[in-house]
Amino acid sequence: MKLFTYWRSTAAYRVRIGLAWKGIAVEHVPVHLVRDGGEQHGAAYRGVNPNRTVPALVLADGRVITQSLAILDYLEETIPEPPLLPAEPADRAMVRAASQLIACDVHPVNNLRVGAYLKRELVHDQDDVVAWMRHWMNEGLTSFQALIAETGPYCFGGDVTMADLCLVPQLYNARRWGLDVGSLGRLVEIETNCLALPAFDTARPEAQPDAEPG
Amino acid sequence: MKLFTYWRSTAAYRVRIGLAWKGIAVEHVPVHLVRDGGEQHGAAYRGVNPNRTVPALVLADGRVITQSLAILDYLEETIPEPPLLPAEPADRAMVRAASQLIACDVHPVNNLRVGAYLKRELVHDQDDVVAWMRHWMNEGLTSFQALIAETGPYCFGGDVTMADLCLVPQLYNARRWGLDVGSLGRLVEIETNCLALPAFDTARPEAQPDAEPG
Repeated sequence: MKLFTYWRSTAAYRVRIGLAWKGIAVEHVPVHLVRDGGEQHGAAYRGVNPNRTVPALVLADGRVITQSLAILDYLEETIPEPPLLPAEPADRAMVRAASQLIACDVHPVNNLRVGAYLKRELVHDQDDVVAWMRHWMNEGLTSFQALIAETGPYCFGGDVTMADLCLVPQLYNARRWGLDVGSLGRLVEIETNCLALPAFDTARPEAQPDAEPG
Repeated sequence: MKLFTYWRSTAAYRVRIGLAWKGIAVEHVPVHLVRDGGEQHGAAYRGVNPNRTVPALVLADGRVITQSLAILDYLEETIPEPPLLPAEPADRAMVRAASQLIACDVHPVNNLRVGAYLKRELVHDQDDVVAWMRHWMNEGLTSFQALIAETGPYCFGGDVTMADLCLVPQLYNARRWGLDVGSLGRLVEIETNCLALPAFDTARPEAQPDAEPG
């Protein structure tokens, strides 16, 4: 399998953790989302993913799976161990809901292309964009903290789940945008616990071959 | 079970179709997202869903599942027939990816609260908000059209899937915002085919008890 990825993409970061968690080695193909207006807009990558987003996972038969949570569900269904979801349907739903709170309600509103639209079409400056990013992250992460379990090294107790794979990249992004995480103590604690695990550590943006210094 | 819903919410609309598709009758509890600044922000509903979004499904044991796609996956796992996902993992992943393109990349960026932020915090007028809505819908639906199967009465051929449950509400919303759907012929065709089915018809916004005239 082959993963189209970008070191700083939080959606790609989720999938990198999932692959490492399941012990699956894949070829990484970097797509530079910023340089020269964004490699994702070129004809080559549009042929891979018409939505021009990363990640995209290319299967052995050439089929392409897009969307990070769809990829994680695919991995869970084809390589069930070690799991990323609990066994019971209602427990699975709680984990999926928390994951989607980040993957639907926070991340897409703060996507690179949304920031670019605010600047280019609506003529806002960097300060407005920074306030925008922080606002949605703060709203979303505060809700996320209220939605997860109250204790446990991870979001839902003693087992790592898909929700942890969404949280850790989102906190990485929150720091990039200078969000004050003072009221998100439980989340920062979970982040520390997760990053101590090899699967999270190897998936870090700074550990990727396409990472840039500084 | 009990569903917190709002007639015009496209996320709640998805779940209403799913429940009808599975033949599950639930009590509907309307949450008015607009009146008096939005009932979802009140203490009562925040106790149900700290993220202040609809839908939320309350199970018999009192647990609350939020996020439309998490609810649909829960329904699929607990009441498998008639299905909303294909049997094979890669096929399921294609359906999930298309569903998430709408539920993650289009809908949240066009959410009521995002429009409100554009007006209140960034001092934009209605024209700017309309252009914003149309832009993201057009981008997303164009990508969606490239991602689904080329033929079939529904998004992925002969069987209704979760992707159809996401598409039909999104097209309803696109019309509300006056999007020109001229280049989205395949999607409009699927919409017509879906709305001819009873599960889609009964879930329409205008058919809800909390629907408002005009």
